[in-house]
Amino acid sequence: MGSKFARVANSRKVQIVNDVSGLRPTADDAARDPSVGGPLPCQRLPATTDPSQQAVLERRRRLRAAGYEIEQISGSGAEIDPEKLAGSIEGFIGFSRVPLGVAGPIRIVGSAANGDFFVPFATSEGTLVASFQHAFNVMNRSGGAQCGDQQVGRAPCFEFANLPQAAEFARWLSSRLASLQEITAGTSRFCRLVSANTAIVGNTVYVLFEFSTGDAAGQNMVTLATQAVCAHLLANTPTPPSSWLVESMMSGDKRATPMAFRSTRGRNVSAEIVIPAKQVERYWRTEPAKMERAWRQAVNGAAQTGAVGLQGNVANALAAIFIACGQDVACVAEATTALTRVERTPANEVYASITLPNLIVGTVGGGTYLPTAHECLSMLGCAGGGHARKFAEICATVALAGELAIVGAMSSGQFAAAHASGGRKGATANEKPVTNGSHES
Amino acid sequence: MGSKFARVANSRKVQIVNDVSGLRPTADDAARDPSVGGPLPCQRLPATTDPSQQAVLERRRRLRAAGYEIEQISGSGAEIDPEKLAGSIEGFIGFSRVPLGVAGPIRIVGSAANGDFFVPFATSEGTLVASFQHAFNVMNRSGGAQCGDQQVGRAPCFEFANLPQAAEFARWLSSRLASLQEITAGTSRFCRLVSANTAIVGNTVYVLFEFSTGDAAGQNMVTLATQAVCAHLLANTPTPPSSWLVESMMSGDKRATPMAFRSTRGRNVSAEIVIPAKQVERYWRTEPAKMERAWRQAVNGAAQTGAVGLQGNVANALAAIFIACGQDVACVAEATTALTRVERTPANEVYASITLPNLIVGTVGGGTYLPTAHECLSMLGCAGGGHARKFAEICATVALAGELAIVGAMSSGQFAAAHASGGRKGATANEKPVTNGSHES
Amino acid sequence: MGSKFARVANSRKVQIVNDVSGLRPTADDAARDPSVGGPLPCQRLPATTDPSQQAVLERRRRLRAAGYEIEQISGSGAEIDPEKLAGSIEGFIGFSRVPLGVAGPIRIVGSAANGDFFVPFATSEGTLVASFQHAFNVMNRSGGAQCGDQQVGRAPCFEFANLPQAAEFARWLSSRLASLQEITAGTSRFCRLVSANTAIVGNTVYVLFEFSTGDAAGQNMVTLATQAVCAHLLANTPTPPSSWLVESMMSGDKRATPMAFRSTRGRNVSAEIVIPAKQVERYWRTEPAKMERAWRQAVNGAAQTGAVGLQGNVANALAAIFIACGQDVACVAEATTALTRVERTPANEVYASITLPNLIVGTVGGGTYLPTAHECLSMLGCAGGGHARKFAEICATVALAGELAIVGAMSSGQFAAAHASGGRKGATANEKPVTNGSHES
Amino acid sequence: MGSKFARVANSRKVQIVNDVSGLRPTADDAARDPSVGGPLPCQRLPATTDPSQQAVLERRRRLRAAGYEIEQISGSGAEIDPEKLAGSIEGFIGFSRVPLGVAGPIRIVGSAANGDFFVPFATSEGTLVASFQHAFNVMNRSGGAQCGDQQVGRAPCFEFANLPQAAEFARWLSSRLASLQEITAGTSRFCRLVSANTAIVGNTVYVLFEFSTGDAAGQNMVTLATQAVCAHLLANTPTPPSSWLVESMMSGDKRATPMAFRSTRGRNVSAEIVIPAKQVERYWRTEPAKMERAWRQAVNGAAQTGAVGLQGNVANALAAIFIACGQDVACVAEATTALTRVERTPANEVYASITLPNLIVGTVGGGTYLPTAHECLSMLGCAGGGHARKFAEICATVALAGELAIVGAMSSGQFAAAHASGGRKGATANEKPVTNGSHES
Repeated sequence: MGSKFARVANSRKVQIVNDVSGLRPTADDAARDPSVGGPLPCQRLPATTDPSQQAVLERRRRLRAAGYEIEQISGSGAEIDPEKLAGSIEGFIGFSRVPLGVAGPIRIVGSAANGDFFVPFATSEGTLVASFQHAFNVMNRSGGAQCGDQQVGRAPCFEFANLPQAAEFARWLSSRLASLQEITAGTSRFCRLVSANTAIVGNTVYVLFEFSTGDAAGQNMVTLATQAVCAHLLANTPTPPSSWLVESMMSGDKRATPMAFRSTRGRNVSAEIVIPAKQVERYWRTEPAKMERAWRQAVNGAAQTGAVGLQGNVANALAAIFIACGQDVACVAEATTALTRVERTPANEVYASITLPNLIVGTVGGGTYLPTAHECLSMLGCAGGGHARKFAEICATVALAGELAIVGAMSSGQFAAAHASGGRKGATANEKPVTNGSHES
Repeated sequence: MGSKFARVANSRKVQIVNDVSGLRPTADDAARDPSVGGPLPCQRLPATTDPSQQAVLERRRRLRAAGYEIEQISGSGAEIDPEKLAGSIEGFIGFSRVPLGVAGPIRIVGSAANGDFFVPFATSEGTLVASFQHAFNVMNRSGGAQCGDQQVGRAPCFEFANLPQAAEFARWLSSRLASLQEITAGTSRFCRLVSANTAIVGNTVYVLFEFSTGDAAGQNMVTLATQAVCAHLLANTPTPPSSWLVESMMSGDKRATPMAFRSTRGRNVSAEIVIPAKQVERYWRTEPAKMERAWRQAVNGAAQTGAVGLQGNVANALAAIFIACGQDVACVAEATTALTRVERTPANEVYASITLPNLIVGTVGGGTYLPTAHECLSMLGCAGGGHARKFAEICATVALAGELAIVGAMSSGQFAAAHASGGRKGATANEKPVTNGSHES
Repeated sequence: MGSKFARVANSRKVQIVNDVSGLRPTADDAARDPSVGGPLPCQRLPATTDPSQQAVLERRRRLRAAGYEIEQISGSGAEIDPEKLAGSIEGFIGFSRVPLGVAGPIRIVGSAANGDFFVPFATSEGTLVASFQHAFNVMNRSGGAQCGDQQVGRAPCFEFANLPQAAEFARWLSSRLASLQEITAGTSRFCRLVSANTAIVGNTVYVLFEFSTGDAAGQNMVTLATQAVCAHLLANTPTPPSSWLVESMMSGDKRATPMAFRSTRGRNVSAEIVIPAKQVERYWRTEPAKMERAWRQAVNGAAQTGAVGLQGNVANALAAIFIACGQDVACVAEATTALTRVERTPANEVYASITLPNLIVGTVGGGTYLPTAHECLSMLGCAGGGHARKFAEICATVALAGELAIVGAMSSGQFAAAHASGGRKGATANEKPVTNGSHES
Repeated sequence: MGSKFARVANSRKVQIVNDVSGLRPTADDAARDPSVGGPLPCQRLPATTDPSQQAVLERRRRLRAAGYEIEQISGSGAEIDPEKLAGSIEGFIGFSRVPLGVAGPIRIVGSAANGDFFVPFATSEGTLVASFQHAFNVMNRSGGAQCGDQQVGRAPCFEFANLPQAAEFARWLSSRLASLQEITAGTSRFCRLVSANTAIVGNTVYVLFEFSTGDAAGQNMVTLATQAVCAHLLANTPTPPSSWLVESMMSGDKRATPMAFRSTRGRNVSAEIVIPAKQVERYWRTEPAKMERAWRQAVNGAAQTGAVGLQGNVANALAAIFIACGQDVACVAEATTALTRVERTPANEVYASITLPNLIVGTVGGGTYLPTAHECLSMLGCAGGGHARKFAEICATVALAGELAIVGAMSSGQFAAAHASGGRKGATANEKPVTNGSHES
């Protein structure tokens, strides 16, 4: 029957539906309980690409009927008391409103996330949600995810009179790990010091402290702990430094660095999927061999740029989820250090995986309590403590969907078509439609 | 009188005000005209750190009195018709609301941005807006910005039977630039092909097309143009490729790459400032020499991580402005390829600059028409065509403020304090306050 | 008959011969002329792995018989007069002697290199020459290479009082290209200024000048030209800089940077080859699919490290040839910015290519006149002016052979075996041989 | 009296002497013993820049008189029996001869290297040895070095049917560290497994094994150990991988990666020096503030290139020493991952340091037994077991000298002059001398 997505390029009338035909009851089905925010059964929503007022109302109706809370999202709830925002914003004058779309369900068989999920995206990039819905439809028969423990680092530095003093301090510090762990534990219920690694750069010692932070993203937590640890070091060091910094930019905070692959910032999470050739043909009008080739060509393209990691457009998925779910959106910068794989299996399937080595996410703290963020996290069954690992696995799976969507589009020649379909307001109003060149000439 | 910012750490009662004491009428003052969205005169706003309902209302009152439109931001305007969102979102169910704070005024003496600006930040990161307000106060006596032309690239690739065919195609393509420019001009009023560079990788030719895109961010525009250019190449090439991609990940799209320094993606914009020692002492309780040293130590920290560019936390500023102003937030990932400088001058001032070589921003298209985004762009005098260069200069200056804020805090030992002051909701509720270690021991 | 290379691991008696069975007369055969150093016909040499005195003498005899000059290499020529070394060394006390082995012939069908070549390697790494001989045998039925023009860059910087002055200087400089080209041409017969690109970093302008340098590596030449160009700029600039550097580390000199892919330092050269499955099976006991998979796994391994480019062990090939041929060995550091591909074709062949975007080599100047270097360059038909492009194509093809050797070994489980066979003197004397684990389990 | 180095540019008659005026007897003086190859007392050598036959003979005479063995270097010793080279070279036909110069003495006060050293450089780059001699003269009053333990990594990977199996294998492997250490110890007297870190990339587990290797560079040693460890893993794993590689390019072997800063390959060694302003003025005609500024400008230049680490021309020093001392020259590619600092102290001195986080060197094994290499290592007191740490500290100090030489030349405007003085043979014969532009305009 051909790809719906491809046809979107040619006609606004073609619609992308949320296809649930392949879904069967999941392990979560028996135990699902709205009060803990697990995935809920839900009727198929109206076509993702239907922008009508009626479709919007029907989406809301069905989500509500299935037990999802969307009062704040739909603008009908009472506004939060500004004074409650004191810890999150200063100079407050109101709210930015970012359009929120849902795609789903996507089935995830992860170690923590297990079930079918509707995913909220806050974005103004046309076709973004549609392309995720499209990828979810392809992926709904298989797939898994796996999330490791959370760690966040801070990297103070200490400058001394000379190299021998620096070397002595590095040795001394390494012998104090137990004390530093004790001090860390005194600063927070959740924060624990996991390791301390020193690097000597002339007369200066750089230290990378790595902490576990429970279900919080933990960036404040580790800063406070590092401050306390440094205070202890300064009070006890045989030789005091001439100057020091509590953070020396060596932790990789809010920037992409390959270090993420060696020492986790946030959660290290992987997701994978195997897709049969017929699904690839049906939805993207392409073949596993062409997707593999497109990815290989793209890898060689990226290798000429000095980019960190190997990934297509992970930032798109994460920025939209992060805004929706009250995460620190600036962390998108570092979360793009990802490693995507798209390969053809001997059985002519597509094997794809994504590894996000440093996904900084939390389900408590930060902006997670904000009204619409809380509703979005609840939609994923991830509101509150104990759900950070689950949330990370969902983020990874959605990022993988985004990677598959772009590689599918690249390999079928629909990349430009996908961009063209939604168009943009304003400047692109007079762009002329272009016939797609044949990809395979 | 000591630094207010520093004291924030110790007491919630200390307030950061928006200090306008150093501002004098600017060149824009005579010509300012609300209808074109220029900067407006405005009374001093209540202290940035005052979270009371009363302060919120007073901020709104004064901004409105000065002519700023904030109906949508303050939640009192009518909601946009969902059907008008068709080009920006699919699966629409409502809006994510992100807290919006303003800091300002910040004086900018740029080539396009010239005047005093209130800057909107959409964020849930506590202390973020306050630290920008603090830096604006320090910076309000000097500073400039400079923005180059916008360019956006796309990088298709073409695979051939062998290396000689690839080399022949590369030579042939280089001879067709005029035709390709003509084709590009036919796809859009704004899009122009500036250059085409080829790279041969075995039997495959990678091509980097660079386009100018007027006032739009232009990512769709260049994709459509590249599609048209490729269609022409495929129809005319003496030897057809065996396969090709319209985008090969070599353009640097949504990832940090050092290529940004050589070939602009978006706008290449620099901002600089000179700050006297007494300002540095007054606001950050530090000295130019200490700020220079802190930055130097941080540069050596970052150099150990393989990070792209040299910058502190540019992502914080850009994510908050991008959400507020309807930009493509995922582009924060690539915009962090920045180069910050913090130096002590022979006259004992702080010289600081930032270069953002690839700032992808637009004042038309994308999400710029969304109600709250339009109000935020208008607040900066940047709504609509002809303002993209101005907007880029404002973004750069604000990013520079963020860099100064972090280096000021690092060098005065207030880095952790700044984090602690706002705290975070939830998980950090039981964090214990920590006495700041002395920075200079 | 199985792979000889593999068996090397188990027994010193197994020999790697230089297999010429697949070679037919080449285009060069008719026109070869020893006086211009073209490739010469030569009898098969004794087995590469035969270390006996007799084999050494026989190799020399056959090479001499074929017209190659190896007097200096074999230690029988008169020593060069030390005073003639004045431009190449100071504090001279004698010579380091590095063992020199030859592998070959390797057939190259390049745009400049065309024929069968014996390749000299100066190294003390056991098995290195043998593994190249092995790869040459596999490659001798096909393959091509292509080399672009030579360019070398220098990147001065100019610091001004402020950003506007810097921007003005950048604009002014861009308008002076013709003058700068004239000045450059006055400094050398060979050096020509190709382009000048400016980057503004706050109050500082970085300029990348790119020059063509004829057949010389050209690093001195471009420094002198840049000095002259800067002198002109300083004498004519409307606003003088407060300070400047003739080289700002932005040229990529002697370090690996991804910039090499965008703006050539040295020569941009590619080589490719297609190898039938039966050759892969015969020599490496592996299959095209396994080689493709091994390379793909290795690419994902490298992606986790932040390495520049994607390559296996290009440094091995280049260091050994550079020492042998009087090149600047320190340039190996930047030449490792390479991009290797190893893929399975639909016809079940191995397609492999290598791109060296910045190969700094010369056939005149530098150490090319030194007695043994001259003989080595002559062995390749590359001594003297007019041969730099040919030499670059040979280097690329040999580097490709090295890549295939390692991927072949990796995919067949012989990687460790290859290392073990030759062993190292001294420390490894008591290493115990290890049975190879099966690669495909 | 002005800088000798600067004047070299203008006249071949100006000479760079090896200045020993600042040296006093060192700690090593009492205990020095030629048989263990410690530094020896030696008369001042003839001017480094004197290329006359007479100077060569006089250098040799004085070095011999001081007890240094230079028979092989000076070409008077018997040639090594080719059969003894069996483990180091195949296809042997003779030797490449690379000019060898000495500079020195350089005083080092390191943790292992302690005394005054003559350093051998094998190179054909004119002015290289002279610029080191010049820097040694500047540095001879102070300085220190510090070297950590040697580690070398190997990074196999194991691909499984799916992600859960990969995760299970990673957990299982982590529990087997003790067994793997035992197996490693059985493969070599020197090789010890220090750590094993796993990274899950979809269905594939990458493992970084780090080993200590005694005084050998150890690259073969760790490959053999990894092979044995993998054999054990494959024989015992509950779930066998579908394929695996003994080395996945994740170890950083022969390429520059920032990972070197986190996990040592080779030795992590730092050297530092403090130089008074008057020395800087005397030898380089510059000032500490100008050197600091030049380095800062260069750091910002390098930051625009995506280079790994921050260093000037470390490859020059290391390539020349590595060739001289029988090291694996291809390792220069990875050794350039360095971090250089050049700063002005409050007392107006130059503080400079270099950190080489992954210096792969050995004093046994590899080419260290070769006749001229053995003599060069002996000249440094580093021949044989127990000296690798000392050799690493010498390499770092020499590399630091090279960094100071280039920054000194950059900041005084003598960069081009230094290049011009020696010139190159052949191509540069008609280069015209250029008057140096004033650096400080």
